[in-house]
Amino acid sequence: MNIIENIKDTKAEIKRLKGAGKSIGMVPTMGFLHEGHMSLVNKSVSENDVTVVSIFVNPTQFGPNEDLEAYPRDFDRDRDMLNKAGADIIFFPTPTDIYPENYLTTIKLTGVTENLCGLSRPGHFDGVSTIVCKLFNIMSPDRAYFGSKDYQQLQVIKSMVRDLNMDVEVIGMPIIREADGLALSSRNVYLKDEERGAALSLSKSFNLVESLIKDGERDAKAIRNKVIDFIHSHANTNVDYVELVHPEMISSLETIDGDFVLALAVKVGKARLIDNKYFTI
Amino acid sequence: MNIIENIKDTKAEIKRLKGAGKSIGMVPTMGFLHEGHMSLVNKSVSENDVTVVSIFVNPTQFGPNEDLEAYPRDFDRDRDMLNKAGADIIFFPTPTDIYPENYLTTIKLTGVTENLCGLSRPGHFDGVSTIVCKLFNIMSPDRAYFGSKDYQQLQVIKSMVRDLNMDVEVIGMPIIREADGLALSSRNVYLKDEERGAALSLSKSFNLVESLIKDGERDAKAIRNKVIDFIHSHANTNVDYVELVHPEMISSLETIDGDFVLALAVKVGKARLIDNKYFTI
Repeated sequence: MNIIENIKDTKAEIKRLKGAGKSIGMVPTMGFLHEGHMSLVNKSVSENDVTVVSIFVNPTQFGPNEDLEAYPRDFDRDRDMLNKAGADIIFFPTPTDIYPENYLTTIKLTGVTENLCGLSRPGHFDGVSTIVCKLFNIMSPDRAYFGSKDYQQLQVIKSMVRDLNMDVEVIGMPIIREADGLALSSRNVYLKDEERGAALSLSKSFNLVESLIKDGERDAKAIRNKVIDFIHSHANTNVDYVELVHPEMISSLETIDGDFVLALAVKVGKARLIDNKYFTI
Repeated sequence: MNIIENIKDTKAEIKRLKGAGKSIGMVPTMGFLHEGHMSLVNKSVSENDVTVVSIFVNPTQFGPNEDLEAYPRDFDRDRDMLNKAGADIIFFPTPTDIYPENYLTTIKLTGVTENLCGLSRPGHFDGVSTIVCKLFNIMSPDRAYFGSKDYQQLQVIKSMVRDLNMDVEVIGMPIIREADGLALSSRNVYLKDEERGAALSLSKSFNLVESLIKDGERDAKAIRNKVIDFIHSHANTNVDYVELVHPEMISSLETIDGDFVLALAVKVGKARLIDNKYFTI
């Protein structure tokens, strides 16, 4: 496995590999890998000649009062996991290589960025779309793999790739969960033992919505309020949002008349957790 | 010469050509070609296996009160000129192919876009950087050729390519002028015969600046005011801006202590003309 710490050498290596006819799969990460990330890596290894994993805690997608400094990091552990999984290259750049002095450019999307985390985290998706565009241009992947836990992010990236006519197939992979239902996240390390039960309220609310829909409820607000009440019935929870949204436009629905995504962001202690589920009607 | 009117077929053809090891040169235009454009096409033909010229009057770089509808068009004439010059492909898309329903994405640059035409034409450079990024992704050129008359545009594109880690060499080519000094522009057709003398005040002001600099003048404001007075001494002129700017940052200078660019935008009758000159100190 090849660890490359700058853009220039990465580009040269990718050019060499593409020249030799190799297909490139890419998994962009912020490191501190878990089985969610590894499911993307495994998929990429199975579908491409070469798998590149980027590890970069991207400062521009963190707000001024967010957890950029505290974000968990463990490169040695990540490297060993990736080596074992058969990844070929780790791209591990420095912030100044990615954003040198006089850096000027931002990619902004309307619509799909304007609800959910786009409301709670102003500028977050500008940071996401810009770094992903840069990583795609550095790595020229044939396929790129993203987890569906960040459902809105996946739609933002698919929209950007479509709009900017980029040549990469964006592949969304299922959320990986603990046995008790908790969606895997690097931020789960923030959870104290006594907050675990409260953290499970996110995934448990899916059953509640399932049964409401089965009973014929079609009013999004009624469903939303019941989910919020359910979550707040657990200690140490503070709902950021609960929304029923259009699966592609990410616009909030008033009435359920087709497939939708239930999207949640909840603060449990100091961990901000997100989760979602796609409902087929 | 191959005329392709949609993105999908263009991408397929470029992929085929690159697979055969051909280098691609690209000249993005809004059509109504003149010898300025043709100097770019000739350069591309001489440096690349395949030259693609795009003709697209990009609506997103025109403001609401600008000349989008009136912008001159003559596809048959453009086609004949390009055929004669040895261009290989004309990419001639429709606005709905470029900006389909639910189009969401814009590329924005700070700094380099904030002065000169960025002040006079809000949103103009967002439209420029976004369409050029799309064209680069559609055409995957090795080299792309731009005229220096749009000096600020050239710096915007160079900055975007650097920031987004794109694999294209951006080549700026000298301004082509009529024998009397008027910079070629598709918008020169708007000039009435009696406005021609006034239009020449832009390029004539270069001599004025040359002699001021030679006499030791280093105060940008003093030079600027003399140029404005000179231009306004011609009938039917209305200065939009005259600025002495840093050649890369496009920031206005107060004192001349190195190379600079004199950049002008002047309304002459209903034509808004721009011109510039790079001064070496």
